[in-house]
Amino acid sequence: MKKFMDEDFLLSSETAKVLFHKYAKDMPIIDYHCHIPPREIAENKSYDSITTLWLAGDHYKWRLMRANGIDEKYITGNASDYEKFLAFASALEGAVGNPLYHWSHLELQRYFGIDEELNQESAKRIFDACNTKLQNGELGAHKIIKDSNVACVGTTDDPVDDLAWHSKIKNDGFVSGVVIPTFRPDQLFQANGKLFSAYIKQLVEVAGRDISKIQDLYDVMRSRMDLFDQVGCKSSDHGMDEIPYVLATEEEVERIFQCLMRGEQITENEKEAFVTAMMLFLGKEYAKRGWVMQLHFGVIRNTNEKMFLAIGKDTGFDRIRGNVSVDGLAKYMNHLDKENALPKTILYSLDPNDNAVLDVLCGCFSETGVKGKVQHGAAWWFNDHLPGMRDHLEDLASRGLLSSFVGMLTDSRSMLSYTRHEYFRRILCEFVGNKVENGEFAWNEERLGKMIQDISYYNAKEYFGL
Amino acid sequence: MKKFMDEDFLLSSETAKVLFHKYAKDMPIIDYHCHIPPREIAENKSYDSITTLWLAGDHYKWRLMRANGIDEKYITGNASDYEKFLAFASALEGAVGNPLYHWSHLELQRYFGIDEELNQESAKRIFDACNTKLQNGELGAHKIIKDSNVACVGTTDDPVDDLAWHSKIKNDGFVSGVVIPTFRPDQLFQANGKLFSAYIKQLVEVAGRDISKIQDLYDVMRSRMDLFDQVGCKSSDHGMDEIPYVLATEEEVERIFQCLMRGEQITENEKEAFVTAMMLFLGKEYAKRGWVMQLHFGVIRNTNEKMFLAIGKDTGFDRIRGNVSVDGLAKYMNHLDKENALPKTILYSLDPNDNAVLDVLCGCFSETGVKGKVQHGAAWWFNDHLPGMRDHLEDLASRGLLSSFVGMLTDSRSMLSYTRHEYFRRILCEFVGNKVENGEFAWNEERLGKMIQDISYYNAKEYFGL
Amino acid sequence: MKKFMDEDFLLSSETAKVLFHKYAKDMPIIDYHCHIPPREIAENKSYDSITTLWLAGDHYKWRLMRANGIDEKYITGNASDYEKFLAFASALEGAVGNPLYHWSHLELQRYFGIDEELNQESAKRIFDACNTKLQNGELGAHKIIKDSNVACVGTTDDPVDDLAWHSKIKNDGFVSGVVIPTFRPDQLFQANGKLFSAYIKQLVEVAGRDISKIQDLYDVMRSRMDLFDQVGCKSSDHGMDEIPYVLATEEEVERIFQCLMRGEQITENEKEAFVTAMMLFLGKEYAKRGWVMQLHFGVIRNTNEKMFLAIGKDTGFDRIRGNVSVDGLAKYMNHLDKENALPKTILYSLDPNDNAVLDVLCGCFSETGVKGKVQHGAAWWFNDHLPGMRDHLEDLASRGLLSSFVGMLTDSRSMLSYTRHEYFRRILCEFVGNKVENGEFAWNEERLGKMIQDISYYNAKEYFGL
Repeated sequence: MKKFMDEDFLLSSETAKVLFHKYAKDMPIIDYHCHIPPREIAENKSYDSITTLWLAGDHYKWRLMRANGIDEKYITGNASDYEKFLAFASALEGAVGNPLYHWSHLELQRYFGIDEELNQESAKRIFDACNTKLQNGELGAHKIIKDSNVACVGTTDDPVDDLAWHSKIKNDGFVSGVVIPTFRPDQLFQANGKLFSAYIKQLVEVAGRDISKIQDLYDVMRSRMDLFDQVGCKSSDHGMDEIPYVLATEEEVERIFQCLMRGEQITENEKEAFVTAMMLFLGKEYAKRGWVMQLHFGVIRNTNEKMFLAIGKDTGFDRIRGNVSVDGLAKYMNHLDKENALPKTILYSLDPNDNAVLDVLCGCFSETGVKGKVQHGAAWWFNDHLPGMRDHLEDLASRGLLSSFVGMLTDSRSMLSYTRHEYFRRILCEFVGNKVENGEFAWNEERLGKMIQDISYYNAKEYFGL
Repeated sequence: MKKFMDEDFLLSSETAKVLFHKYAKDMPIIDYHCHIPPREIAENKSYDSITTLWLAGDHYKWRLMRANGIDEKYITGNASDYEKFLAFASALEGAVGNPLYHWSHLELQRYFGIDEELNQESAKRIFDACNTKLQNGELGAHKIIKDSNVACVGTTDDPVDDLAWHSKIKNDGFVSGVVIPTFRPDQLFQANGKLFSAYIKQLVEVAGRDISKIQDLYDVMRSRMDLFDQVGCKSSDHGMDEIPYVLATEEEVERIFQCLMRGEQITENEKEAFVTAMMLFLGKEYAKRGWVMQLHFGVIRNTNEKMFLAIGKDTGFDRIRGNVSVDGLAKYMNHLDKENALPKTILYSLDPNDNAVLDVLCGCFSETGVKGKVQHGAAWWFNDHLPGMRDHLEDLASRGLLSSFVGMLTDSRSMLSYTRHEYFRRILCEFVGNKVENGEFAWNEERLGKMIQDISYYNAKEYFGL
Repeated sequence: MKKFMDEDFLLSSETAKVLFHKYAKDMPIIDYHCHIPPREIAENKSYDSITTLWLAGDHYKWRLMRANGIDEKYITGNASDYEKFLAFASALEGAVGNPLYHWSHLELQRYFGIDEELNQESAKRIFDACNTKLQNGELGAHKIIKDSNVACVGTTDDPVDDLAWHSKIKNDGFVSGVVIPTFRPDQLFQANGKLFSAYIKQLVEVAGRDISKIQDLYDVMRSRMDLFDQVGCKSSDHGMDEIPYVLATEEEVERIFQCLMRGEQITENEKEAFVTAMMLFLGKEYAKRGWVMQLHFGVIRNTNEKMFLAIGKDTGFDRIRGNVSVDGLAKYMNHLDKENALPKTILYSLDPNDNAVLDVLCGCFSETGVKGKVQHGAAWWFNDHLPGMRDHLEDLASRGLLSSFVGMLTDSRSMLSYTRHEYFRRILCEFVGNKVENGEFAWNEERLGKMIQDISYYNAKEYFGL
């Protein structure tokens, strides 16, 4: 029996161990997409309790607890910190095969120096030890970033954001790595006229100029992108159901825009035409700036209305939209590519059945000098675990070029989740190591070591232009 | 080379062996959903031939034989018992990786004490040995249930059933475990007006009261559910294409009901509205009674019309309906949940591509005190085999909480298929054992032993309220 | 560490090694579907450079190079042979897990006696060694076929083809195995009236008779099939998006045919009706002749228009069409089967998610004396690699009868790709060997050896009637 989550965790062969310990482990982390509020970094936020740190906002953990029949009082309710922590431990100890089990223990090991298993019996000990460390101020945001060897943090920011926290971080110079914004204009894509026009008002305010025609919107968006660019932005991000491709004339798009501005509801077809027009505009602008375009799709949010009304969005009730069509996406990328205006693009679907479809689609677009111009992003959200990552790597490797992969990102709201990069690198080294051990790939330590370093760090550095 | 299907069959590690032999093996069986006719149990049916027992009604075996090009005469035709058995053996010996190979040998081992492989060479010996045992009366229904350590058998029963066989079983008290009916109102969902109205006539007859409005139908259904409840029913079951969600007014539903009653054909949209209304009514009634609602979907039946006309339904010509949408299902469950009327629910899709989608959907609904309120049921039918079960467990574990799983059911027409519970438990213990052996999960024999017992028995006991 | 791609490549157990070396390795190859131009065989084509042989037409390799950001000049452009070869080597050395890595090295080993890894360092040495051998004339088409132990080559031929090259091959008698045409009438299914009528003109010309009504077209097609049959044709092949099933009257089909003949565009529904009619006609004709019908579907071609305009079709820009429906296919086969006119049929989908759906669908049709009447064809194109083949075998074995499988085909344009049969056989022997080693299948060398030989050779021989 292998020791529980020791230094060779997930590494079964000598080759895998060499690749991980000698090449992967010490590479800096480029976390090019996450949801950490820049304010937390700017203010060097510290935490008074492991419960706040782990359970105040992590809907992955809430889901697990609900699956165990735990009362909402102990999840998002008003139970005490320890009661909540104990309740989480009671669910976690049955979570064989769930990534939370690994993530939680990696975080305990790396940030708190705790090697024992978290379960109902050990919960009090671990709760106290973590809180002592936290209350001694040993784990502030800056220290976590430094100790985790993070070279770059890509946050998620709305075009209306003034990026003041980002400027403060830059000016203060306290953070060891680079913290950069990501342009996420999801609010532009609301088919609900009222929400749309309210959002345009916000844009008008921050831009300090009027928006009455769609060209005005384009101009304002350009100026926001310029601002983001100045603060170091290297990529955009979109959360979409499916990527549509419905072409409309400029006049038609203008007409739909005016409907939305008047707060009117638009049809499904009008929505798709409007989204297509906006995405074509944005894609070209991204390409001009050398930005990467990230497209996340295949989610259905807020499946449980009762809980949505009770505790709001992003609380653990989202699900996988099956049977996503990538036809619109393919046509959209083709349209941009024909005009030599396709930016580097990363595709993420929440449905693991899309792996093969996306890996092959990626291979249909390329650019001289760019390794993996269109990428199939790392296993995302409900797939971000051992079998999910392994399948993603295998699907990508067998239908594409593994060495060009830009690798891992956390997509997380938690400062401690940098351990997921370690998790990914272990799985990667095990994957490559196995091929070598089985005689399926030639052993050349220098070259494979370099490949591991590329996928862990250098590919992302080059791809995002850091 | 490991010995052929010995006591450590499918168990590759010490941990897996400990978990299986010490914790799983002796747990009673709760076979909460099967298709054994209660009459066979009431009458303590015995069999005169292994051919009758194995080949008289098992369309899994028929499919395998047809894939080998065997003449229908030896499958459902009038060949002799031994000819049929030999023909089956000739197909089975090439069935590497097919679950029938394992199931057949487990049945030979456990019920007949035969350890050798069934093939064309051994067929005569095994045929004779089995028949000797059967003809000596050593294997009647009651004895099989007792020897298999079956604590509960959940049969499948139509609302029009008078449950007389169930009452007889209960009153006789001969059966060691509990035999309970399951409420399966599929005939209510026929869009064919003629079949629908004929079915309503049957309901009128057994209920002894008239049904002229839909409220009458609801009342009769309630009274049938009450009867089922008195005889011990703990769950319902539905076989559906997809679960629709088309809301209609009460008046509209009444109108559609009247169309059906007049034997008229209804539109697809009317059908969906009617099914939605019935399912909402039924779901609430199940919740009131604390019943579990089982939903089976994703099947297309009778793909081969020539054979349907020749030998009827359920003869081995069904297939997987791909690209099932679970949107209606999600909205349906959400509707009930908003009214605090969602019963415990088990979802089964015939398409293994739905695994991830369902595992995540399940996690969107919960109830205090209920472990895994909405469950992704065990790998079903064409997925009920080693890789199918392994994938199901891995998908469930990585996107949910394995320890809350209610585990295995046979869904079978055959008395001997209780060995599939053993098969499942072996795969489960191997799955958990591997994680421990690889250092991916902490070894705590007591706790993991308990988890294995929960998934094998206690979870189902608690979930169904037995 | 296992040695790099040695004689036990992909074989991890003694059983697997015995099965491969003793039973699989020396079986002749029936490559029942490929895209080698018969002219290359007739003229005993030889190659002056490994670059021509490997990189002149292989869009698999082009894709890999593009994923590495290589300039098109080194792919389909005018760079020198060695520059192109070196560029390919630079991509290949990062292609962990990609089938090109294995295929390329198998080809170097088997045809050039080169055992070292191809990478940037070894590229020059290998380039020179290969070219020396090629320029010495050691590797002409006839020699490759003979040395590869190829018993049958099934090319892909249009109904308008006069089969002169095939006749020449037959008459010359220089080729050791049998080279036979495959009837591929894809051009009949063009909804574009102009292309359709132009194609009909070609048919008129080769047939030497007029086509004014659809019955004339049927007659001409029959005469073409008769010609193909005389030259040894044993099967047809179709490349389709999805298989439709829209029944129309003879008059309606005639009307659509006349529209097409006038060069008019037809509606989507008319197209499906026409395709259905043609496919019903063809299926019956295939059945009459005892031909096998091969159906390839689930592809979307030419995703990248810029590259299509620059370098044409089949250049590496195709993708997987997800969410394919097999309903039309099921109904189509059922229609033919009801009339006892379903030919032996092999189904290939480009979407690996269709595996389970297809394996089960295949089992819905059978014929006395035919092992596996409807087959799920070997992992195709983007799935034709180690995990793809392994998944295909596992899905087939667990939902069907492995021993009836007709096995591998290359579907390739390259003479050297016969090594893929070796690759497949290794994976097959490993798959079966593992089951035996794990005690999941009884060890009977003679019977399992025979099964391996059947799947490698005899099943295809019998199925195609060779």
